[in-house]
Amino acid sequence: MSNLTLKDIEELLRKGNKEQIEEAIDSIHPADILEIIHDHPDHADLILSKLPNDMIADIIEEEDDEDDQYTLLTSLLKDRQREILDEMSDDELADIVGELDEEEKSQVLSNLDHDDKQTIENLLTYDPETAGGLMTTDYISIRAKNTVLDTLNYLHSASLEDLPKYYLYVVDKDGILKGVVSLRDIVESSFDTPILDITNENVKTINYLEDQEDVAKTFMKYSFIMMPVVDDENRMLGIIEIDDIMDVIEDETTEDINLMAGMSGEERVDSTLIESYISRVPWLIVNLATAVMAAAVVDKFSGTIAKVVSLASIMSIVTGMGGNAGTQSLTILVRGLSLGEIDRDNALKIFFKEVGVGLLTGITIGIFVGLGSWWFAHNPWFGLVAALAMILNMVAANIAGYLVPVVLRKCHIDPALASGVFVTTVTDCLGFLFFLGLATLFLPLLVQ
Amino acid sequence: MSNLTLKDIEELLRKGNKEQIEEAIDSIHPADILEIIHDHPDHADLILSKLPNDMIADIIEEEDDEDDQYTLLTSLLKDRQREILDEMSDDELADIVGELDEEEKSQVLSNLDHDDKQTIENLLTYDPETAGGLMTTDYISIRAKNTVLDTLNYLHSASLEDLPKYYLYVVDKDGILKGVVSLRDIVESSFDTPILDITNENVKTINYLEDQEDVAKTFMKYSFIMMPVVDDENRMLGIIEIDDIMDVIEDETTEDINLMAGMSGEERVDSTLIESYISRVPWLIVNLATAVMAAAVVDKFSGTIAKVVSLASIMSIVTGMGGNAGTQSLTILVRGLSLGEIDRDNALKIFFKEVGVGLLTGITIGIFVGLGSWWFAHNPWFGLVAALAMILNMVAANIAGYLVPVVLRKCHIDPALASGVFVTTVTDCLGFLFFLGLATLFLPLLVQ
Repeated sequence: MSNLTLKDIEELLRKGNKEQIEEAIDSIHPADILEIIHDHPDHADLILSKLPNDMIADIIEEEDDEDDQYTLLTSLLKDRQREILDEMSDDELADIVGELDEEEKSQVLSNLDHDDKQTIENLLTYDPETAGGLMTTDYISIRAKNTVLDTLNYLHSASLEDLPKYYLYVVDKDGILKGVVSLRDIVESSFDTPILDITNENVKTINYLEDQEDVAKTFMKYSFIMMPVVDDENRMLGIIEIDDIMDVIEDETTEDINLMAGMSGEERVDSTLIESYISRVPWLIVNLATAVMAAAVVDKFSGTIAKVVSLASIMSIVTGMGGNAGTQSLTILVRGLSLGEIDRDNALKIFFKEVGVGLLTGITIGIFVGLGSWWFAHNPWFGLVAALAMILNMVAANIAGYLVPVVLRKCHIDPALASGVFVTTVTDCLGFLFFLGLATLFLPLLVQ
Repeated sequence: MSNLTLKDIEELLRKGNKEQIEEAIDSIHPADILEIIHDHPDHADLILSKLPNDMIADIIEEEDDEDDQYTLLTSLLKDRQREILDEMSDDELADIVGELDEEEKSQVLSNLDHDDKQTIENLLTYDPETAGGLMTTDYISIRAKNTVLDTLNYLHSASLEDLPKYYLYVVDKDGILKGVVSLRDIVESSFDTPILDITNENVKTINYLEDQEDVAKTFMKYSFIMMPVVDDENRMLGIIEIDDIMDVIEDETTEDINLMAGMSGEERVDSTLIESYISRVPWLIVNLATAVMAAAVVDKFSGTIAKVVSLASIMSIVTGMGGNAGTQSLTILVRGLSLGEIDRDNALKIFFKEVGVGLLTGITIGIFVGLGSWWFAHNPWFGLVAALAMILNMVAANIAGYLVPVVLRKCHIDPALASGVFVTTVTDCLGFLFFLGLATLFLPLLVQ
């Protein structure tokens, strides 16, 4: 077995001639060539010039970033562009075209033949974050009256090449989906078996309007690798494959993680300076407003601080620890919500658990903080104030960590949305209030 | 088409008799039955008693939680247990058995026939977080000398039922992997095609020792739905399927998110109170130590605060905003590292971008904070101190957000590990230092 390493492939592509490459091309994965082009962008033109059109189409499809896909495409000669567009799957094409400005869009569309152009324009009418926007219309539909042998012969026909074939869809003359036949069932059944006998009529479908996050959940639940997309009349529109779902899951997870930290869902590590600035500064400004609220709480107690300056050193421990506890609770809740693990049945149980965790961690940390503060201020009352404030703030932190995402979800807002900012607002304001408020109550005992 | 809703299925399972259920069983997905059992745990025994063994095996395989799998299994009569274990795939069985204590383990193993028992004991020798721990030995291997027709006839043999069949693996007599044939190629090729002609010899393999996170990355890169696992001599050991990879991705992502927030990677929303407490309290204690460091910084400047008490109100704005900016930067970096988007080529560029973002957001927020503090203290110098400290701390925050995960990665520690705690330590300590240090420098101008 000649297992080619990335280095072998790179050498072959750079130094080999077209014939040598042609011979080896079947054992090279497009994702590997894409990686080589990414690592050596200056060799891209040379490498692309030696590759056959269908491989270039595959490489462009492997590229995740639509802008880079377009750049790859336009780096080719005009007449090659047309042939490569022809080889590409329609959902990938629609994704690229959807990201282009009007001029580029019409330029690409003008390179397509009439049928493809119509398919793409049709796919572009779907919201890209729904099932319709994810699906491809490249699938195989068959009629129920055939046998396994008929179907195998049909599959041998060359025009079906490259279509995903794990499942075949049985439709009637109006295109209404009647059932699904897996390729497994076909190869497992004797040649004279009627297709109808191995058709599963209770096929799980996805409505074209369904949000991509829900589509991903359905794929996860049933462990499917392919699912049919239908309209409200159960007319088959297309299919979604698992690799598109994996991209959706990756994107949605990154979006959640970003939102929790108070950033735009679109920011990535390779975003530009300006993109990152625009992604982050809005929530920093919101956060500033909430920080001012916390500062205002402190200011209300400036008289107390003036009398016992060491309160200023300890108070940030109370708020900081609360912030951390709140973030822990929030993180568990947001992730649980996004994985669909929280429902009416267990919501209350989780709430009380969070309150319990807040109490237990609050008592644990409160004992440390109390003893430390006692030692620091040489005053047991100082320790008591710190410990009580710590316990109260930890419980408040966990309640906020639970309530913020749950309330956001109730309001149909993404529960991850800057929930970190909201939770730390609660822990900062309440932390200062508990600590400085208690200190003010106990003031005569603290200033001894 | 009789598309059964969850409610239909529930009614059928609860009220139907064995025969009615038997008839409909092919159009019911085990994941749906599992959902019904989860929603109505009190009906579980009744429902299970009416279902055939292979369906129960499928339902147990759908359950993600190994403890719940075991509970489901043991809720059945002893003689049924044996039959159901027989129906289950070996990787799932190994996962369950791996989670049991010694007594339960030997009880389950004693219920298996000799061959299965050996397979499971063999699978248990692999680290569960590696390719070996993920794989199943249920795959189909064929010999290269056959034709497509021979192979189809072989696949028709009943004993192969339920084995995943998207890819068939060509091995020699020593079990050395020679190539892969996709089911697509088989159905696309005429019956007399020799298998050798459609065998891809350059098959991508996974070494059994490979970490599951790397395995997931390989699946993502190549969009595979199944990959073979081999030993160092390229001997075929098993296969990994995409649905196991999706579980890995979900778990690894949750683990990353948890670690970033300073929790155990294993905590979930349904963890018990004690599990959550044990998961969270260690990092809270670490965080307490770092909070004490920050408090010590404040304490060093207590003389300054005593003279200008309003510093105590503003200082938490400087640290809090820094903490948020640091978390943003950290979040982008940790996610980028875990998706493999950061390498030697772009690391420096990303570093300078983060510094730039810190500077830009620092100036933006610094202007607000400076003007606000000026107004608050009726003193432009107060505003200047706050603005400068804000800018310095934002830049420090973004540098810390970059360096903490990158350094952890360099030390072969998971970059997500409590990195939030480390970053806020930096922003708290430096924030207080910058602000109170500058205030001390400018003290004569502030006490006017």
